[in-house]
Amino acid sequence: MAGISDVTRGRIVFGGDYNPEQWTARVWRQDVELMREAGVTLVTVGVFTWARLEPTPGARDFGWLDEVLDLLHAGGIAVDLATPTASPPPWLGHRYPETLPVDADGRRLLYGSRNHFCPSSPIYREHALSLVADLAERYGDHPALAMWHVDNELCEVCYCDVSAAHFRRWLRQRYADDLDALNEAWHTVFWSQRYSDWAEIRPPRRAPYLINPGHQLDFRRFGSAALLECFEVQRDVLRAATPTMPITSNFLGLDAPLDYRALARREDVVSHDWYPDPADPAAHELAGLGFDLMRTMAGGPWFLMEGATSAVNWRRRNAAKRPGQLRAESWHAVARGASAVCFFQWRASRAGAEKYHSAMLPHAGPDTRVFREVCSLGAELRRLDELADAGIDCAVALVLDWESWWAVRLDAHPTADIDVLGRLRAFHTALARQGITVDVVGPDADLSGYRLVIAPNLYLVTEGAAANLTAFVERGGTLVLGSFSGIVDEHDHIGLGGYPARLRKVLGLRIEEFDPLAEGETVRCSSESIGDFEARDWLEDLRPEGAEVLATVADGHRAGRPVMLRNGFGAGAAWYLATEPDPRALAELLRKVCVDAGVAGVLPELPVGVTAVRRGRVLFVINNRSDAVSVQLDAAARVDLLGGQPHSGLTELGAFAVLALME
Amino acid sequence: MAGISDVTRGRIVFGGDYNPEQWTARVWRQDVELMREAGVTLVTVGVFTWARLEPTPGARDFGWLDEVLDLLHAGGIAVDLATPTASPPPWLGHRYPETLPVDADGRRLLYGSRNHFCPSSPIYREHALSLVADLAERYGDHPALAMWHVDNELCEVCYCDVSAAHFRRWLRQRYADDLDALNEAWHTVFWSQRYSDWAEIRPPRRAPYLINPGHQLDFRRFGSAALLECFEVQRDVLRAATPTMPITSNFLGLDAPLDYRALARREDVVSHDWYPDPADPAAHELAGLGFDLMRTMAGGPWFLMEGATSAVNWRRRNAAKRPGQLRAESWHAVARGASAVCFFQWRASRAGAEKYHSAMLPHAGPDTRVFREVCSLGAELRRLDELADAGIDCAVALVLDWESWWAVRLDAHPTADIDVLGRLRAFHTALARQGITVDVVGPDADLSGYRLVIAPNLYLVTEGAAANLTAFVERGGTLVLGSFSGIVDEHDHIGLGGYPARLRKVLGLRIEEFDPLAEGETVRCSSESIGDFEARDWLEDLRPEGAEVLATVADGHRAGRPVMLRNGFGAGAAWYLATEPDPRALAELLRKVCVDAGVAGVLPELPVGVTAVRRGRVLFVINNRSDAVSVQLDAAARVDLLGGQPHSGLTELGAFAVLALME
Amino acid sequence: MAGISDVTRGRIVFGGDYNPEQWTARVWRQDVELMREAGVTLVTVGVFTWARLEPTPGARDFGWLDEVLDLLHAGGIAVDLATPTASPPPWLGHRYPETLPVDADGRRLLYGSRNHFCPSSPIYREHALSLVADLAERYGDHPALAMWHVDNELCEVCYCDVSAAHFRRWLRQRYADDLDALNEAWHTVFWSQRYSDWAEIRPPRRAPYLINPGHQLDFRRFGSAALLECFEVQRDVLRAATPTMPITSNFLGLDAPLDYRALARREDVVSHDWYPDPADPAAHELAGLGFDLMRTMAGGPWFLMEGATSAVNWRRRNAAKRPGQLRAESWHAVARGASAVCFFQWRASRAGAEKYHSAMLPHAGPDTRVFREVCSLGAELRRLDELADAGIDCAVALVLDWESWWAVRLDAHPTADIDVLGRLRAFHTALARQGITVDVVGPDADLSGYRLVIAPNLYLVTEGAAANLTAFVERGGTLVLGSFSGIVDEHDHIGLGGYPARLRKVLGLRIEEFDPLAEGETVRCSSESIGDFEARDWLEDLRPEGAEVLATVADGHRAGRPVMLRNGFGAGAAWYLATEPDPRALAELLRKVCVDAGVAGVLPELPVGVTAVRRGRVLFVINNRSDAVSVQLDAAARVDLLGGQPHSGLTELGAFAVLALME
Repeated sequence: MAGISDVTRGRIVFGGDYNPEQWTARVWRQDVELMREAGVTLVTVGVFTWARLEPTPGARDFGWLDEVLDLLHAGGIAVDLATPTASPPPWLGHRYPETLPVDADGRRLLYGSRNHFCPSSPIYREHALSLVADLAERYGDHPALAMWHVDNELCEVCYCDVSAAHFRRWLRQRYADDLDALNEAWHTVFWSQRYSDWAEIRPPRRAPYLINPGHQLDFRRFGSAALLECFEVQRDVLRAATPTMPITSNFLGLDAPLDYRALARREDVVSHDWYPDPADPAAHELAGLGFDLMRTMAGGPWFLMEGATSAVNWRRRNAAKRPGQLRAESWHAVARGASAVCFFQWRASRAGAEKYHSAMLPHAGPDTRVFREVCSLGAELRRLDELADAGIDCAVALVLDWESWWAVRLDAHPTADIDVLGRLRAFHTALARQGITVDVVGPDADLSGYRLVIAPNLYLVTEGAAANLTAFVERGGTLVLGSFSGIVDEHDHIGLGGYPARLRKVLGLRIEEFDPLAEGETVRCSSESIGDFEARDWLEDLRPEGAEVLATVADGHRAGRPVMLRNGFGAGAAWYLATEPDPRALAELLRKVCVDAGVAGVLPELPVGVTAVRRGRVLFVINNRSDAVSVQLDAAARVDLLGGQPHSGLTELGAFAVLALME
Repeated sequence: MAGISDVTRGRIVFGGDYNPEQWTARVWRQDVELMREAGVTLVTVGVFTWARLEPTPGARDFGWLDEVLDLLHAGGIAVDLATPTASPPPWLGHRYPETLPVDADGRRLLYGSRNHFCPSSPIYREHALSLVADLAERYGDHPALAMWHVDNELCEVCYCDVSAAHFRRWLRQRYADDLDALNEAWHTVFWSQRYSDWAEIRPPRRAPYLINPGHQLDFRRFGSAALLECFEVQRDVLRAATPTMPITSNFLGLDAPLDYRALARREDVVSHDWYPDPADPAAHELAGLGFDLMRTMAGGPWFLMEGATSAVNWRRRNAAKRPGQLRAESWHAVARGASAVCFFQWRASRAGAEKYHSAMLPHAGPDTRVFREVCSLGAELRRLDELADAGIDCAVALVLDWESWWAVRLDAHPTADIDVLGRLRAFHTALARQGITVDVVGPDADLSGYRLVIAPNLYLVTEGAAANLTAFVERGGTLVLGSFSGIVDEHDHIGLGGYPARLRKVLGLRIEEFDPLAEGETVRCSSESIGDFEARDWLEDLRPEGAEVLATVADGHRAGRPVMLRNGFGAGAAWYLATEPDPRALAELLRKVCVDAGVAGVLPELPVGVTAVRRGRVLFVINNRSDAVSVQLDAAARVDLLGGQPHSGLTELGAFAVLALME
Repeated sequence: MAGISDVTRGRIVFGGDYNPEQWTARVWRQDVELMREAGVTLVTVGVFTWARLEPTPGARDFGWLDEVLDLLHAGGIAVDLATPTASPPPWLGHRYPETLPVDADGRRLLYGSRNHFCPSSPIYREHALSLVADLAERYGDHPALAMWHVDNELCEVCYCDVSAAHFRRWLRQRYADDLDALNEAWHTVFWSQRYSDWAEIRPPRRAPYLINPGHQLDFRRFGSAALLECFEVQRDVLRAATPTMPITSNFLGLDAPLDYRALARREDVVSHDWYPDPADPAAHELAGLGFDLMRTMAGGPWFLMEGATSAVNWRRRNAAKRPGQLRAESWHAVARGASAVCFFQWRASRAGAEKYHSAMLPHAGPDTRVFREVCSLGAELRRLDELADAGIDCAVALVLDWESWWAVRLDAHPTADIDVLGRLRAFHTALARQGITVDVVGPDADLSGYRLVIAPNLYLVTEGAAANLTAFVERGGTLVLGSFSGIVDEHDHIGLGGYPARLRKVLGLRIEEFDPLAEGETVRCSSESIGDFEARDWLEDLRPEGAEVLATVADGHRAGRPVMLRNGFGAGAAWYLATEPDPRALAELLRKVCVDAGVAGVLPELPVGVTAVRRGRVLFVINNRSDAVSVQLDAAARVDLLGGQPHSGLTELGAFAVLALME
């Protein structure tokens, strides 16, 4: 983990967001004592402190923060110091209403919440950067400082006139000042939408009917770019002041508001906020997918920057975590490459919009189940500090591409129900149950290290991505592609002559027409290789052009239509799935594919809810369930580094049990 | 069909929307070749080409269109040339924001979609008419020109200040400059809404609670009038330039945004866009109702101007059509009087908001099931060119009145669930299954040619309409009236003294009170004449005043209440249905009514999904189902003009089979 | 009933809203005749007549009202004269757009409905008061005048700039001009929301994410205060002109838009509008709760100011009342303390937004079931005029606090499903079925007269309220508290150290963590004292600190957790319910509690749907059901003052039967 200061190097970081501004100086001293009791090694400070640091325009009030950082440092606790730019003070929006964001309906949103700024606003940026510069100058060489934390969960989008002008500048750059190129890309000849002047272009505000999809897609890209700029301008200020201090900005899940890969390339530490629903017995599935994504983007260890010790406050019903659940979830992150386990937040707020969000230290104080579990976790993490820098070797990659995801969600498609996340999860879960851990890559990634690449959906495929995937197969790789992939290029233009134009050759087929099923409709399919199964949601009128048909529709007027195919291509093979099969069929298909590709898991077939991942020299086996379950381990006994006992063969795991077996 | 040029006279027109502006000149040549292969005789050109024809304010770019029209003419293909006014170029909204529409929430809607104009805007109209005039001048005597197509699916509504002023002018005319008359009509004495000056009147924008219903109803009428004006001003320009060229404007279904009868009276050709859901096995029912409406409005043959060859793009899930389904649907239109079968669109767009809408020529090209079916249909239509001018004789009329429909949908009614369209469909379907084809008329229509007139719901009844219906019965006709009819006058004022005041005499009854049932609640009814049945949704506390009671509630606290009555009146009879009976009971009732009225179908009771209509000398029998079904034909054999075989007696029809039996 | 004029003193008032402005003078004369036939003693006149009284700015048209009041007086009918301020004329909003309200999205709402004014607008208030003053002067000594009726169902809320300024003035007063105090109260240190100047504060308009809860809660209080001001300024004008004339303003149900207790303290007569759904067989339950609330607020008899004789017009489906249902509902109100039974409205409107609302005189005229039932009710009420001033003695109080209700509904809570009204209803119904009638009090009420006080939910507890409840128990009272009570103070700040901080001592317990159940999830609980039961929606991680555990979770990972406790405290006892038990368990618990507290009902366990209340010397027994049911009366026969027969022992009550048994 490049650059984390000595305080945390070689250790699994443990801590959370710390908001001393909400408490008195007397409480700060208790906090440091209790943090030490809990084994905290790092806290994030300052995330929403702009109004406290700059109570009136231009003023600076750093004294309290000086004291807090000194106290933490004296207590041996490192600081991830945040720029407080995610929530400007009311005075900014009051004095400069143009810094407040406008939504797609043209409504200007008010302060009194958070995230109330236009990312394109020069006034916002100027005030933000001035404060960031002063923070960098004042604390750049503070001994507690271990990392910079830029903003918080960057996600703002704005449709105001300032954003409109910024959007036009961005478009002029993207289209090299060639308005015809934009008109061509957006296909504005359709519905008489041709722009005769750059000045006519606006954000895609509410319109009478369907809005131009190219316009929408580019505005999504622009929104991503604007947020990336917000990051970059802060990063540049911080880097100028402290050239070697690592910089992060925390991500928020899989359904990203900006291109997280682009941001990951620009920061030093990839950090992630993740809030699984304690009441969802399958919550570990998406969690695992997100953790694998973060590790892949980081190219190594990553930070779990925020999690909840128990309930959150924003679901309809916010269940508490069960005893042991926090521990299992935390080790799951470590198993998948995390070098830090942190929480929002250290001490539960006594008021405000998030007062019911759980914390390391609950309202009821330290004499609580939650605080005891926190202390226990903090101590236990120490036992595997050796893993802090360890990675995971994967032979399989899942493809996740945000541009494609944004594009496939545009309206007026054959179905509104292509569930990209659901498909990613289904494939990830099926592989995980076979003991296989995956990287999560973009379609332009270097695939040479993988044997198997799976794109559950890749609607938008650039020429480069198509070439990359094709070359991967040609050179001996195995590719699995889900339906409605390869349909459009980067401008959302359809490849003509039969779908999926750019991938027809590698797949060895041609799709004439899409034929979505009704909601709830099922179609029986028959297959010699994976057995009969039920398909849902999607079918196609498809002609093999070289590919071998592995499954077809069994009956009805669509009888005989191919739904699963395999095409030998070059030294490799490409599989295509033209429908949504049931989970058993998907698992069976992946077993075949893995055999084909020569990929094997760390353990044989796992029970539902059990995770097995090898990181470094440790094989983690985690029961994410609230009941006991039996797992078949290797015959040779291996010691559990947490429990101290050896395990082998059929082994029972209690509710939320974690084994860290030494190889 | 008055006025269609020689190219199409005496033939069933076949073609679709053609959007050459989306393609290169090289493609145009392929298109004409493929159109000829498909048997296309007419294409609609220019619908959304404003920005292409007038790329900057005042400019004209006609060269490409000259070339396209010449190419089409050289290929023997006629042109329905559209005015491109449904989608102004971005420059118009950018330069004149007041031309952009405002919704009921006060939000100004943006360009970048379509339909983004205020129908009342003088600036919009001026720019539109200038271009229309130039089109008329340039192409008025082009040999390819066969018809003018004004705008597209007129439907715009606007709540802006320009519209407000126009609304006030329209109201001053409607109320002869008498503000007291408006206050009386809107009953503004209620809730202190009295207007003291015309200037105070606005469109019914969002308000704190229920909005005055008279205000809402008149605004709906005004919206219709404003669109009618938009049509008329264009028509007048076109007619001045080409006095004999026929003019149309395409309609969009049954739930009309303006008074389609008023527009039909002002145009030469009635044309209709219809997009049944391929996944709905009962989609032909509403289709048939719409086709009958169009034929009645046209007073003869009409144009099916737009349909889809397969899937559309705007449903949640857009199923493809099954093999044969397109053919059956097309012949269904012809059976019910169409003289043209056209599609949106010729060639599927490669980009834009409608790229997933199917076309005559799919993305995958001519080597496709869809294109083969299109070619086959184009050829087959030729066999029945003789029908192009034939009509259908109907003894039965269904009453559909848009003003009443708008009024019955206003809020704060006894139930929000009077489903006008559902009732029309239920009666239409029950009659269709008895082999009876109906006209669809307004309540002021000349009814002298009918034996039976059915108004499934006619909430709003003017004095004239009440007299018309009463006189029809008096002179020997049979009237069937559904519940919640005759309740209000044209100002939405209730007729007092017992409902339905204006129709009590002809019906021979008096309703004291409405008594809607709960959702899902059913009430058993008993009837000697049609057997026991279940009623839903609606009941009344009703007293016969001369009418014979044919069915009553069977049990519960409402036991004994009449729900079906027949009143002999003059030389005729009026039936009243005070509830929503189950489909079997409705069918049985209609059988009794038809016997009463001396009306018989072309074939005896038909299976579900089968249509039988006689047009000219041809009896069409169409299986709209995806499975086979048996139909009882006459004993005497008649030749199927499509298949060439004779048929008689019990005959099996395969999936989507069509028989065109010669009388 | 302090102050009602002689016309109505000592009688149960019978009548309704009368809107003569909608009818001609000829109809007025029929109305008075029919009112006399119906036994009407009082009508409310003038509610929505502003535009009629002041047709143009400053004009006055009182002549028609003079005539109406004279006619009514001549007919012996008293008048409750309304100020017409709930619906300003269009000219006000047209000339002064700033008087129109703005919603939380910033949309200015239009006239043409009702309630379209900003309560803070000085222009609105000035125009309103001027007219009120003139009304008071003109009619203050009219012999028909029996009561003033201020506005109608006050409920307006506005987010405009005028309201913003008023909100700031109100805040400066609330926080004694101390901005730090506001920042502390709103905990603006969270998310950097600190205000540096009063001018920055706005109403809580739409924002990007969760809005500060203190801000929201204070804006709710401000909205209440603004409406209270609207009432007070009118009251002061009226009182100055007619010092002894009683004044009311009608309330609208339980979920109050302002603090009804505060308004009740400022008016002379508490009046209530109540519209139970005729199709809901349990509608009498909430009705009874509302009636008890009104009686408690009035400190004696109250007015049922509006009800419907049959259907209303604003539900999705508006069922008619069944024969007898109106009578049972009306006597239910009288049984629970009403001294007036009035309806909206006398004569059904023939047009406008409420034309389908039933009335005393239907559209169909006097020869109708409804009018006959109205006449019969009017006559029957006369038989119990003796009750007009009688009260009801209650040993039990339910606690309802609007500030707490507003606070518990704020977002981002442990569950969004704390159903305050549902809980109040569940407790009220369980007690009612045990023959126990309750008062409905605020948490600061004098509790010395009660043996048992029940707070089904009291989320927000001030220091004073906590002391009040604690002292009540200490002095020997029995307190029952439902879950998620006592969590926050008046600023929505959580009491730390274990919930519910301010009530931990009296309850003898400490809650560590909330643990809401999933929707539909049930948990088995076991209890020796009330039997096993099923719990839903809510659980807690709770530790007794002195309280006796009466029920615990039976199984699962939460097994053993206490869910019901009793704590002896001082001379009394406090019960705590940590979950939502099933209705049987709730009833059983309340039986135990009542025995504990020495409270008994007027009759033993009643069947579902039957109400038994003793008012004065009369025991009412009412069957609210549409079927017959048997009730166990006392052995000694008592005469039914309505039917004239004596009843004793097991007695059958027909559908909607009412007994008024003389003690």
